[in-house]
Amino acid sequence: MSIRSAEIICVGTELLMGSTLNTNCRFLAQELVDLGIPSYHQVVVGDNHDRLAEQIRESAARADLLILTGGLGPTTDDITMSVAAEVAGRELVFDQDSFDAITEYFRRLFRNMPKNNRKQAMLPEGATILKNNNGTAPGAMFEYACPTEEDPDRVVYFVLLPGPPSEMSLMFKEEVRPILEKMSDAKLESKYVHLFGIGESDAAERISDLIDAQTNPTIAPYASEGECMFRITQRIEKGEEEKDLITPIIDIMKERFGQCIYEIGDRPLKKVAFDMLLEKKKTVCFAESCTAGMVSSSFVDIPGASQVFMGSVVTYGNQVKTNLLGVSDDVLENLGAVSRECAQEMAEGARKLLGTDIAVSITGIAGPTGESAAKPVGLVYLAITDENGTEVKEVHLSGNRSRVRHVAVLHAFNLIRMRLS
Amino acid sequence: MSIRSAEIICVGTELLMGSTLNTNCRFLAQELVDLGIPSYHQVVVGDNHDRLAEQIRESAARADLLILTGGLGPTTDDITMSVAAEVAGRELVFDQDSFDAITEYFRRLFRNMPKNNRKQAMLPEGATILKNNNGTAPGAMFEYACPTEEDPDRVVYFVLLPGPPSEMSLMFKEEVRPILEKMSDAKLESKYVHLFGIGESDAAERISDLIDAQTNPTIAPYASEGECMFRITQRIEKGEEEKDLITPIIDIMKERFGQCIYEIGDRPLKKVAFDMLLEKKKTVCFAESCTAGMVSSSFVDIPGASQVFMGSVVTYGNQVKTNLLGVSDDVLENLGAVSRECAQEMAEGARKLLGTDIAVSITGIAGPTGESAAKPVGLVYLAITDENGTEVKEVHLSGNRSRVRHVAVLHAFNLIRMRLS
Repeated sequence: MSIRSAEIICVGTELLMGSTLNTNCRFLAQELVDLGIPSYHQVVVGDNHDRLAEQIRESAARADLLILTGGLGPTTDDITMSVAAEVAGRELVFDQDSFDAITEYFRRLFRNMPKNNRKQAMLPEGATILKNNNGTAPGAMFEYACPTEEDPDRVVYFVLLPGPPSEMSLMFKEEVRPILEKMSDAKLESKYVHLFGIGESDAAERISDLIDAQTNPTIAPYASEGECMFRITQRIEKGEEEKDLITPIIDIMKERFGQCIYEIGDRPLKKVAFDMLLEKKKTVCFAESCTAGMVSSSFVDIPGASQVFMGSVVTYGNQVKTNLLGVSDDVLENLGAVSRECAQEMAEGARKLLGTDIAVSITGIAGPTGESAAKPVGLVYLAITDENGTEVKEVHLSGNRSRVRHVAVLHAFNLIRMRLS
Repeated sequence: MSIRSAEIICVGTELLMGSTLNTNCRFLAQELVDLGIPSYHQVVVGDNHDRLAEQIRESAARADLLILTGGLGPTTDDITMSVAAEVAGRELVFDQDSFDAITEYFRRLFRNMPKNNRKQAMLPEGATILKNNNGTAPGAMFEYACPTEEDPDRVVYFVLLPGPPSEMSLMFKEEVRPILEKMSDAKLESKYVHLFGIGESDAAERISDLIDAQTNPTIAPYASEGECMFRITQRIEKGEEEKDLITPIIDIMKERFGQCIYEIGDRPLKKVAFDMLLEKKKTVCFAESCTAGMVSSSFVDIPGASQVFMGSVVTYGNQVKTNLLGVSDDVLENLGAVSRECAQEMAEGARKLLGTDIAVSITGIAGPTGESAAKPVGLVYLAITDENGTEVKEVHLSGNRSRVRHVAVLHAFNLIRMRLS
């Protein structure tokens, strides 16, 4: 029995109201990709009997596997289990093992089990019970006969999982995934190509022949602020020979994008810069004006950053640029704080002050308003300096204050990458 | 014409694959709540003509307003505009103004417009064009005649927004929300009470009597990392007398929460601190260790920050603490960098170095691993110093590296608030 496609149905009024960010849906989507099970719809519906029942029927008409999360709690508005059972024509029956597990859960916390938690042990007749090792609500997997004209024996699988992410993800990994792996007839392999310094449209245009010709592997572009990425995904049917179709595509991309490719894999740009610094045993510091600490703070997201990162100065006021970094009054008065020369003096001053091998500086106009026609919002100068000298880069960034600062940060990391590669 | 319910349709294979977390859906859901427009379904569907068209028809049968995001890009897989126009029976026509805006967007970036961006200026005939002030793709709003037996004149509104969150949210706020506010037959008035220094459960328990008794206004708690908020919302039907039901609730909350309330309104904690500094004409700087620039960078999110913020030092390595801030070797060797004394010396050293009225320092253990049993992950010392002396605060924060750093930043701003109030 093979699963041609799956749908994720997240149940909960808190999702409809936007009180909760739907991280469950993303987790399950990634798991389905990993399992090679296509998915064409994701749905969120509230804790409402009629709408939930209708949604389950509709999704069951489209997909062979429905994964439902949420609404397995002990309160009266938690109805997912009973509605799904009703659609599948199954009675809820008391499950002693699940009841014992719930009782034990409360005992371990030195708490009395509230009466209404008994409801969570009422499970569809004949279902595979999915253990909850992180909470009280057990999940369930069961079949729903859903015949079509073409396939009178058609069966749809329902998987019901609790809503809290830590319970849901553990239950999926421990209890559901092994079952689905056995049922699947293909797997997907993906590789990610990350680019910096080229827009999504430009990038897509440069490999439009590959994108137009794609069948297996598929090539999907993704843009995020200031950078872009391609995911290349190959489908391998079970029993089929595992021939690598991804590498030839990546080789062509390498030819076409050259240095714009900063990573084939999972590392963000800052991690690439960090790994290079670590490998070459170089220390770094930053002198930040418009980014005001964002480069440093973002860099320190990497655990172990202290191995290469010593510290930074945020020189927001001009006086601080002069007093701490020795930027000359002449430059500030005649050329301004947002200038090639200021960036250079900031980087060189920071390297001296903090005693690092490399220093990177950033000064620019993040907005909301520009300084003049010659110095509009988005104009940013970055400088990198080391024992071999200083290099200054001028960039023009689009978007609002937050975007300009964010993309300027990426440029700072990219300068390190380019200098060290 | 009133909107009885809305559906959010997010378009994008990257959502189905779990490559992107669907923050757009949550943002739009919260906006709908704010506008008093109920929503019973949220859907994600891929960039596929037939499935998208079918989904639009299905949603249009259920809801009076469809908000679609994603798939307005320049590449061939971006089909949302053309599919929605097709369902609504509208031709795509070239819009000169939008084309000019896209051209101007590229001009400002000193880049040539790729040919395929012209496609983004092809918009449904008769649509209201929604300007994109953060990117290239314009949005559109238009009507779709969708008669039912009961209502032969029924019209469904389509709103099409781009996928990148910064473009989508700005366009919604600037272009769509004002239109929807006019269409609604009731208005909602909301006030937000922001608290710091109390957990969500504790806070909810303290006003459980108000929450249990709520009808109009409603009281909804929201927790975010390190702080919590209550939204108090009063529904006023059009034509009804406008009696203020919100203030009496807020008065009770003031009594119960006291100084934990940092804002009744929209200002985040840092803006409250900024406004106080501005009002008292005080300048500030930061000395950051574990937060590594996050306090400064976050503070500079506020346009005009330069009026009170001079600069900061990120003293990640111990040597930098000594060389720049004059933290004594004795403290570092015997008490360590994460200590009351180090925080104090950092703040005092920074105030001297940067010549500000106030200095705030942060040193702590963000993780992933602690230093010892006495210095576990989440232990953070903050100090604030001004002409009246120095005060040190010890806090114990829960969560991972990112959360510890984030909440430490809030504590830094709260220290300023408490000192100046």
